[in-house]
Amino acid sequence: MAHLSILGTGNMGQAIAAVAGRGGHPVQLLGQSDAGTAITGDIVVLAVPYPAVADVIAQRGESLAGKVVVDITNPLNFETFDALVVPADSSAAAQIAAALPQSRVLKAFNTTFAGTLAAGTVGPIPTTVLIAGDDADAKSELAGVITSGGLKAVDAGALSRARELEALGFLQLTLAVGEKVSWTGGLGVVA
Amino acid sequence: MAHLSILGTGNMGQAIAAVAGRGGHPVQLLGQSDAGTAITGDIVVLAVPYPAVADVIAQRGESLAGKVVVDITNPLNFETFDALVVPADSSAAAQIAAALPQSRVLKAFNTTFAGTLAAGTVGPIPTTVLIAGDDADAKSELAGVITSGGLKAVDAGALSRARELEALGFLQLTLAVGEKVSWTGGLGVVA
Repeated sequence: MAHLSILGTGNMGQAIAAVAGRGGHPVQLLGQSDAGTAITGDIVVLAVPYPAVADVIAQRGESLAGKVVVDITNPLNFETFDALVVPADSSAAAQIAAALPQSRVLKAFNTTFAGTLAAGTVGPIPTTVLIAGDDADAKSELAGVITSGGLKAVDAGALSRARELEALGFLQLTLAVGEKVSWTGGLGVVA
Repeated sequence: MAHLSILGTGNMGQAIAAVAGRGGHPVQLLGQSDAGTAITGDIVVLAVPYPAVADVIAQRGESLAGKVVVDITNPLNFETFDALVVPADSSAAAQIAAALPQSRVLKAFNTTFAGTLAAGTVGPIPTTVLIAGDDADAKSELAGVITSGGLKAVDAGALSRARELEALGFLQLTLAVGEKVSWTGGLGVVA
């Protein structure tokens, strides 16, 4: 059974920990004050804001070798809410994968609000986590954690699709901030 | 009451015509054989595949001056299904707006499959058309047509958000072709 380590104890880190916990997976939830604690999980979720990822990689990068690393970020310019801060032809996930060549990097959870992970629903439909990545086994492991926790998981393709997932996350955040959707709604996946 | 002209008689053109018709709006549906017929609508929907848009603009561009022009395209590379054919920092809508400086260009309908426009639902949730554009009046006019036809409309922001709408449309098409979602499902908007 996959063991998760989650770096970041904010809303998203806690919500993902709860999903894994519901599925019976051991979870290590590490905050900023746990910098000296070794990562024990096979799957490591970077549940920190995008601007904090570089520091996490600088501090923890070597210990992430051989692990599945899950990028959940939405790399928005939160001052303007009008652009992403990653190059248009790249993605946060692609940059993280480039910085962690010994890890299998996935993009996931950036299109699901914490409230929909907790509730298991986006309005009347089940919450679906979209996963992009280049390693089929890694995607399957993460999907197993998600489905064991009562949510749906959909393979959204190669890690290059992270660009579209980040665009979706960006759009969804602007809709929520603009009160066009609620934080328990958003863009849901209907099979 | 807004009068629509729809250029293109494929699934999407017909579905959009039906929405407008349900709302009681006069609709002119023009196919390729109608090249000599003048456009009469205030709102002109370019319901042709992206590669055909340049020809439409070359033939009809002058007559689109002063009108609201709706770009519904998903500018995919349909051979690889792995990329868009517009530059990463642009969008089909931005290119069309640049080619039609006398028109008010909107992006809409590219995130709704024809089947969900016809049914009025994406699975259990109402079909919502996301509209991006820089002219508030134009967006409001189009939203009026959509809501009168029984669907929901959401203002997704400036025309620059077309980039994210096209990413969403791209992702949704890959999910449908990959049979992760059906053509009557997809990415729905939950308020």
